[in-house]
Amino acid sequence: MALIVHKYGGTSMGSTERIKNVAKRVAKWHDAGYQIVVVPSAMSGETNRLIALATEIMPQPDPRELDMIASTGEQVSVGLLAMALLALGKQAVSYTGWQVAIKTDSAFTKARIQSIDDEKVRRDLDAGKIVIVAGFQGVDPNGNIATLGRGGSDTSAVAMAAALKASECLIFTDVDGVYTTDPRVVSDARRMKTVTFEEMLELASLGSKVLQSRSVEFAGNYHVPTRVLSSLTDPMLDLETEANSGTLISFEEDTNMEHAVISGIAFTRNEAKITVLGVPDKPGIAYQILGPISAANIEVDMIIQNQSVEGKTDFTFTVSRGDYVKAMDVLTQHKDELGGASVHGDAKVSKVSVVGVGMRSHVGVASQMFRTLSQESINIQMISTSEIKISVLIDEKYMELAVRALHKTFELDSE
Amino acid sequence: MALIVHKYGGTSMGSTERIKNVAKRVAKWHDAGYQIVVVPSAMSGETNRLIALATEIMPQPDPRELDMIASTGEQVSVGLLAMALLALGKQAVSYTGWQVAIKTDSAFTKARIQSIDDEKVRRDLDAGKIVIVAGFQGVDPNGNIATLGRGGSDTSAVAMAAALKASECLIFTDVDGVYTTDPRVVSDARRMKTVTFEEMLELASLGSKVLQSRSVEFAGNYHVPTRVLSSLTDPMLDLETEANSGTLISFEEDTNMEHAVISGIAFTRNEAKITVLGVPDKPGIAYQILGPISAANIEVDMIIQNQSVEGKTDFTFTVSRGDYVKAMDVLTQHKDELGGASVHGDAKVSKVSVVGVGMRSHVGVASQMFRTLSQESINIQMISTSEIKISVLIDEKYMELAVRALHKTFELDSE
Repeated sequence: MALIVHKYGGTSMGSTERIKNVAKRVAKWHDAGYQIVVVPSAMSGETNRLIALATEIMPQPDPRELDMIASTGEQVSVGLLAMALLALGKQAVSYTGWQVAIKTDSAFTKARIQSIDDEKVRRDLDAGKIVIVAGFQGVDPNGNIATLGRGGSDTSAVAMAAALKASECLIFTDVDGVYTTDPRVVSDARRMKTVTFEEMLELASLGSKVLQSRSVEFAGNYHVPTRVLSSLTDPMLDLETEANSGTLISFEEDTNMEHAVISGIAFTRNEAKITVLGVPDKPGIAYQILGPISAANIEVDMIIQNQSVEGKTDFTFTVSRGDYVKAMDVLTQHKDELGGASVHGDAKVSKVSVVGVGMRSHVGVASQMFRTLSQESINIQMISTSEIKISVLIDEKYMELAVRALHKTFELDSE
Repeated sequence: MALIVHKYGGTSMGSTERIKNVAKRVAKWHDAGYQIVVVPSAMSGETNRLIALATEIMPQPDPRELDMIASTGEQVSVGLLAMALLALGKQAVSYTGWQVAIKTDSAFTKARIQSIDDEKVRRDLDAGKIVIVAGFQGVDPNGNIATLGRGGSDTSAVAMAAALKASECLIFTDVDGVYTTDPRVVSDARRMKTVTFEEMLELASLGSKVLQSRSVEFAGNYHVPTRVLSSLTDPMLDLETEANSGTLISFEEDTNMEHAVISGIAFTRNEAKITVLGVPDKPGIAYQILGPISAANIEVDMIIQNQSVEGKTDFTFTVSRGDYVKAMDVLTQHKDELGGASVHGDAKVSKVSVVGVGMRSHVGVASQMFRTLSQESINIQMISTSEIKISVLIDEKYMELAVRALHKTFELDSE
C-alpha cells in the first residue's frame, strides 16, 4: 500500500469550511487505498497574528519564546483537521512536532531538522489511521519547541516523506504547479510537468515562492519525489487525474534531447544595490565592508569587486530592499575604516534569472540572454552565474519587459 | 528565599498591555527577593474562540483533539509573559505542561494531575530565573496533551505550589477576595481575611466562582496556603500590603471563640427541580430513575425520596437549569419503566446555602436559618446538609431576599 504525504498551506486551511474540504480530499486518497500523512500549515493569518502579539510586547522577540508562541498556529490546525476527518468517519490522530518527535537543532525561528522518529506514525498508519503532523515545528535536544522559519511546513512535509520513505510528497497549494515564470507577468507562462531538483532549487532561491528552498534541498538530499499541485480543485475529482497533475520535482535529468535548455525565468523585484567607490585594494577589504553588514543580520546576495586601478577598487553588492536603509546606515557608521571610500546606493533594482539544467550542455545561453536584453535596450548592472542559472541585476522599471523578452527568446511558451 | 506561585486569570492576561502589567507585578515580587513561578491562563476569550472553531468542525468535538487545540491558548500566554519579563530585564523562561512535565491521566478535557516533575523548574529558579508554566494542561502517560477542564489553571497553580512546597500560592483575580456573599446581591457583603479550606470547598462547589473546586481540593490535600487577591490594583503598590491582602485559605481551624458560626452565604440561581410522583417503592427504583439521567451526562445535585405510602413513593432531584429540558426528555423516554409514575418539573428554583466550620460546635444553625426564611414567608422546597453547610431550594424569585435576610441574621456584615 503506497504511502503518500500531503501538505496543505495556510490558504487551504484558512477557515473551518476549507479544512472540511481538505479532509474530503484526504479521505478520498485514503479510500483509494493510500496510507496518508498530512502536514498542514497554520490557518492563514494566524502566524502573523501571533508574531504581532509578540512584537507588541517585545519589538525584537526572544527567539525561544517566539517559537513557543508561533508553533501554536499549526497545533490548532492539526487538531481541527483530525476532527474534520473523524467527522467523516475516518480514523485520524494529530501530533505536534515534539510528539512525533521531529528533532531539530536549537536555532530558534530557523531551526533545522536533525532526525525524525517514525515509530509512532508508522504504528498508526499500520492501524489504518490517517496521521496529521504539525508542520513548521520540532523539538530541540533540550526539549524546547523550535520552528523552522517561514514556509517551514513544506520542509516538515518533505522531511516526513523522507523519514517514512513515502512514494510521493504532494504539496497542495494555491497555484497548480511550477511555471516557466510568473503568469501574472507573462501571460504565456506555461506549467512545467516536471522540473529537476536542481532547477527547482535555483527557482526557489531566486524568488519563485512556490516552495521553500530548504524543503527542496531536503527533497534533493533524500530523493523524495515531490509534486506541487492545486488545492483549489474540487476534492471529489478523479484521483488518477489529480495524481498526475501539477509539477513533479524529479531526480533524474531528462534524457530526452528535446528538453528545453532553459526551464524557467525567475525574478525578485525588491533588490537594492550598494556600491563602495575607491576602496583601498588590500587584503581583507571585502571582510571590512561585509563584516559589519553580516553582523547586522543583513543577507547579501550578489557581490562584485572590480579590477583595481591605482590601488583603489570599487565594491558592489546587493541586499533585499527591506534591508537597504539599515545597510547604508551600517556603512556610514564604519566610514572611517573604509579609507575615504564613498558609498552609493540604488534601491530600485530587480534581479532576473534564467534557470535550466540544459545550460550545462548548451553553450551560448549567456550570450543569447545578453543579446535579448540589449535588443530591448536594458542595461545590465551586475551579473552572477551558477552551473544552471544566470542572474542579472537591472533597473526595476525594465523587470517585466526583461522577463517577457527572455521567456520568448528561450521559447518557454511552447512545450 | 521564599518561593511563591502567582496565578493570573484570563482577564489579567487579556491584552498585551495587561500582560505587561502582570510582568511588572511579578518583577516587583522578584526584586523583593522571592523566587517566583507564574501560572497564567489563556488571554480572555481565546479558549472560547478555539472551542468555537472545534465545534464548527465537529459539534461534539473529539476530546483528545479538542485538548490539542484548547491547550494552545495557555501556550501563547506563557510565551508572551516570558517576553514581557525579558523586556523588563528579568531572566525568564516559559514551559508548557508537557515540558515541565505535569503528568495527568488520560481523561481528556477533564484530566487530573497525577504528578509533577519539579527538577527543571527548580534548576531555573536556583539560577535566578522567573519560571512561567502554562496552566490548564498536562501530558498523559502516552504523551498526549490533556487539559484539566474549565478553570483548570487554578488547579495547575496550586499543584505547582504543592510540588515545589511553595510558601504561598497567590491567585490574582478580578475580585479582591472571597466575600461573605455576592456583593452584587448584598451590599453589606464583607471580604473575609481568612476562610478555612473546608469552607472554601463548600463555597466553591456551591457556586462561588472565585476558585475552581478542584484547586481547593488540591490546596487542602497538600496544605498549600492559597490566597485570592486582586490583580486590578497598581502593580507598583507596596509589597507588604499586597502580601497581606485578599483572602487566605488556611488549614487550621480558627481557635478564636469569636469566630463567626457562619462564614458565608452561597447561592446558585439556575437550578431546576424534577419530581417523579407515585413511583412503586421497590429496591432499585432510584437507579431506574437516575441511571438514564446520569447516562445522558446530566449531573444531579440534591436528591430526596419521601416515605412511601401504600407502596408508592415520590422522588425529587435537582439538575442545573441548562440540563432541565434534556432531563425531562430522558424521563419521558423511560416512562414505561417507571410503572405509571408521573413526572413534574419546575425550572424556576434557586439554591441558597449557609457555610461555616463553626456550625460543627454550634447547634441551632438550621433552626435559625429556617426561622429567618419563614419570617420572610419563603417556602423551603428541599433541604440538604453536610457537616459545615445547609442548603435549601426555594422559588427563584425569593433568592435575593433569602440571601440578604440570612446575611443579616448571621451577622456577616460585621467583623
